[in-house]
Amino acid sequence: MRLSQFHLRTEKETPADAEIASHRLMLRAGMVRKLAAGLYTWSPLGLRVLRKVESIVREEMDRAGAIEMAMPSVQPRELWEESGRWRRFGPQLLKIRDRRDQDYCFTPTAEEAVTDFFRQEIASYKQLPVNFYQITSKFRDEIRPRFGVMRAREFIMKDAYSFHVSDEDLQREYRNMYDAYSRIFTRLGLRFRAVFADTGAIGGSASHEFHVLADSGEDALAFAQESGYAANVELAEAICNQTRPAATQALEKVETPTQKTCEDVAALLGIPLQRTVKSIALMGVDAGGGAQFVLAMVRGDHALNEIKVSKLPGLADHRLATEAEIREYLGAEPGFLGPYNARGKIRVLADRSVCAMADFVVGANENGFHLTGVNWGRDLPEPDETADIRNVVAGDPSPDGNGSLGIARGIEVGHVFALGRKYSEAMHCTVLDADGSAVHPAMGCYGIGVSRIVAAAIEQNHDEAGIAWPAPMAPWQAVVCVINPKGNAEVAAAADALYRELGEAGIEVALDDRGLRPGPMFADIELIGIPHRIVVSERGLAAGTFEYRARTATGPENLDRASLLARLRAE
Amino acid sequence: MRLSQFHLRTEKETPADAEIASHRLMLRAGMVRKLAAGLYTWSPLGLRVLRKVESIVREEMDRAGAIEMAMPSVQPRELWEESGRWRRFGPQLLKIRDRRDQDYCFTPTAEEAVTDFFRQEIASYKQLPVNFYQITSKFRDEIRPRFGVMRAREFIMKDAYSFHVSDEDLQREYRNMYDAYSRIFTRLGLRFRAVFADTGAIGGSASHEFHVLADSGEDALAFAQESGYAANVELAEAICNQTRPAATQALEKVETPTQKTCEDVAALLGIPLQRTVKSIALMGVDAGGGAQFVLAMVRGDHALNEIKVSKLPGLADHRLATEAEIREYLGAEPGFLGPYNARGKIRVLADRSVCAMADFVVGANENGFHLTGVNWGRDLPEPDETADIRNVVAGDPSPDGNGSLGIARGIEVGHVFALGRKYSEAMHCTVLDADGSAVHPAMGCYGIGVSRIVAAAIEQNHDEAGIAWPAPMAPWQAVVCVINPKGNAEVAAAADALYRELGEAGIEVALDDRGLRPGPMFADIELIGIPHRIVVSERGLAAGTFEYRARTATGPENLDRASLLARLRAE
Repeated sequence: MRLSQFHLRTEKETPADAEIASHRLMLRAGMVRKLAAGLYTWSPLGLRVLRKVESIVREEMDRAGAIEMAMPSVQPRELWEESGRWRRFGPQLLKIRDRRDQDYCFTPTAEEAVTDFFRQEIASYKQLPVNFYQITSKFRDEIRPRFGVMRAREFIMKDAYSFHVSDEDLQREYRNMYDAYSRIFTRLGLRFRAVFADTGAIGGSASHEFHVLADSGEDALAFAQESGYAANVELAEAICNQTRPAATQALEKVETPTQKTCEDVAALLGIPLQRTVKSIALMGVDAGGGAQFVLAMVRGDHALNEIKVSKLPGLADHRLATEAEIREYLGAEPGFLGPYNARGKIRVLADRSVCAMADFVVGANENGFHLTGVNWGRDLPEPDETADIRNVVAGDPSPDGNGSLGIARGIEVGHVFALGRKYSEAMHCTVLDADGSAVHPAMGCYGIGVSRIVAAAIEQNHDEAGIAWPAPMAPWQAVVCVINPKGNAEVAAAADALYRELGEAGIEVALDDRGLRPGPMFADIELIGIPHRIVVSERGLAAGTFEYRARTATGPENLDRASLLARLRAE
Repeated sequence: MRLSQFHLRTEKETPADAEIASHRLMLRAGMVRKLAAGLYTWSPLGLRVLRKVESIVREEMDRAGAIEMAMPSVQPRELWEESGRWRRFGPQLLKIRDRRDQDYCFTPTAEEAVTDFFRQEIASYKQLPVNFYQITSKFRDEIRPRFGVMRAREFIMKDAYSFHVSDEDLQREYRNMYDAYSRIFTRLGLRFRAVFADTGAIGGSASHEFHVLADSGEDALAFAQESGYAANVELAEAICNQTRPAATQALEKVETPTQKTCEDVAALLGIPLQRTVKSIALMGVDAGGGAQFVLAMVRGDHALNEIKVSKLPGLADHRLATEAEIREYLGAEPGFLGPYNARGKIRVLADRSVCAMADFVVGANENGFHLTGVNWGRDLPEPDETADIRNVVAGDPSPDGNGSLGIARGIEVGHVFALGRKYSEAMHCTVLDADGSAVHPAMGCYGIGVSRIVAAAIEQNHDEAGIAWPAPMAPWQAVVCVINPKGNAEVAAAADALYRELGEAGIEVALDDRGLRPGPMFADIELIGIPHRIVVSERGLAAGTFEYRARTATGPENLDRASLLARLRAE
């Protein structure tokens, strides 16, 4: 590609409303252009990168035996009513009414449509297993689209759906997809990690997320180097190996006039944060279906895990208690809450590590006061319930009993689910089994955020000068830059010859013949992240060399033609 | 591809609601599956064909210098208000409201979005010309979607948009695209014709349609073999070389009690249809803006051309007159209308050939009567207006003065427009010209109905047994069929070896290892239209031959391995 025939438009200025590196750099490199909130046009440069990702995803899905097809963007309400998701999916489902007042949605995912396709197409176990996939636009009406294509409303997703007669065969395909995903992210040149994950709104029995590792990642991942254990912090079990020590302090009420956080209380009292306990007031439902006030307690240095809480009885749809409810049940303001001297009937839910504490500090349920030297059994009844309700932290023991956990940050780019029969049962989808009986097929579903991968790769691979693509995702592998092509015909001809020679050698190369001065030209090439830059200049020609620089190298070097070709071929 | 690893599902039954061959055959071959009215899932087989078309379109667009990018499906109302098309596009525009009550549409075409992209990206004439294209899903909310993917609501379109400083450069690119389109349809192996077309709702100064020729086509095309002239009948000028003969008959009123059509009147009177005149009552507006009753007159054997009528003064938004209006202005019922003895003030609009008639027959404006021997100037004033308001018919002189016209039927699959400055002016899109002044760029737009091409190709290429793909569109070029693979290991091994050998020779080949009996297997292969079928059987192996049959041949022939390879390579 001659860049004079292409469309490149870069910007020096950092865009005002771009909060993260990938968003800033994609705008500065001119890869995308905002059309409206959460809607982006992919420029020719951006589309080249997106297509690289698509191709690798497609090749590995094909290699894994999945079969590509394509479902419409606009899907009828009736199907989504069958699965119950027309309502349950929530406001992220973009609803559409056509000229005949029929309801549709813009597909955010396609379990319903593929199950409908399957039940019309496949009647016998003999045609199973099968795994259908597509790479198409999806839409989620995010309340606050941001971070560019990282959290856009319209995006490109690869979604695959497999069907099986037995759970065992589903497990085999789940592993097959897990392996295919690992190959995909490896081939893309990304540092990634697969972690156990929550099955969330999609449902099912097992699930792994694939994360691109990046400090800016929205997700925290827990992993044990020793065992290979890895899970989203949402899911990773917090093990408590401690047993409760004996009480040594007397219960005492201390004045904490403005100290509403555990940090402030610990500082005032001169004690470690680990000696304090945080009390979070929630509303759930009791066994009779009535409202229940729940006091969730985690250690001062820990964070409550909402997902773990929501899996406990009566807490599936819990919410934070209002200040009025807190006053009614505890008689104090947030900041001074605790399980001692409650006014109403409350359910005390202690994290495992809180249950193992002695001589701890909690709010006194009296504004401006905390209690110290608090002990279960002596000052308070034992907790109504003890459970794992906190996020793991670095140093926690690994749940598999092997080593301790570290925490890394990641960007979710893939997700595999063993769905089971949720959709096939809801949508009355059956096949005839070997014995002639109609059975609901087990399903798996497997997603990859194709457009998000582009942003995630930049979060992981960039520097002050711009993007530093992993070679498999780069718009071109190499670029030949010409200094002053109009002023020196010999230089221009030599650059042109080198450009053609590299192309014939199978190297995907661009020729920067736009006629820019070296400074802006090199800045562009670094910004858009081409892995290999070769400069053809009068001085180099005289010396019989080309100036070569790898994007991530500290400086250029001069190579003759043979060395240059060998270097590029080696990559 | 081993078909046992693929997903094929064919049907013997002709689907009940499929009206045209391509719809029937695409359903029977299992290429598409209806999700809802006008919405189709593309099965793996269908998608293979669609991708063949996409690839050829993409290659030729790239070769022509167009640059691929991608715009979102969901586009904001504000842009469509800028061009005025939010309202003007009509009910085919699928409107969407998001969770924040903002209005969007599902893009049916992207002049607005690309002009918005352009005005943000390009500031100088130095960056022109440029031609951006995309291959993406579009949506038109057809009131009556039908004929499968031929007239679906969601469909795949390639749309391209070029920008130019001068009209001359637009003309050059228009020609460049015309040539690219000709290469595309030639490479696809289709019989096609480019014709002059009406610019319609898109607007602009020049336009050509590309039609796949097929008897079932919705469009009538007029062309002159001698000169190469070709135009949509909507647009082709009807030339009248006749001059009006002298009157020879007296005006006479004749009884035609039940004869309301020209055909019936001519039969009753025993005269040629060409002697009769059809009067069509329309309502337009007069110079003062008031309602105007217009009597449009065409020869009995001709058809009124609404598009030609709508280009005449006061008739842009004409409609048929109601029966009440007809009674008021003419005093008779439809079937007996004419320009003689009108009750009210009417505008008589005669087709050129009607103006050239003498001694003709028209309705008497009295129920049950016609007039014969009518003559302009003697019995009636000369027409208020004479114009070309009819469709051309076979045998009409070619408008370029060279030969006479034939009529063929076609399916529109491509359209090129020289748009001019309609969108750049409406959307305040300018670039700086060489002299430093801001100018509105001239635009062209160029569409190809990628998914429609699949159906159009079938309309043109099918027989009793099914689809007969042009080779470039076939899902595979060849298929190796195995008779009784499980019963004979030697046959299975020989088929497998041939399958791999053909693959290595660069032939895109499938292996039908599904284990079907020969009858159903051959029926499937013919139905899905694979150009070359090779059968490996016990008998053939014994004789050292393979049974080869081209899809369009009358029967099979036995070829040895070398002859078979030579035959397939020659294709």
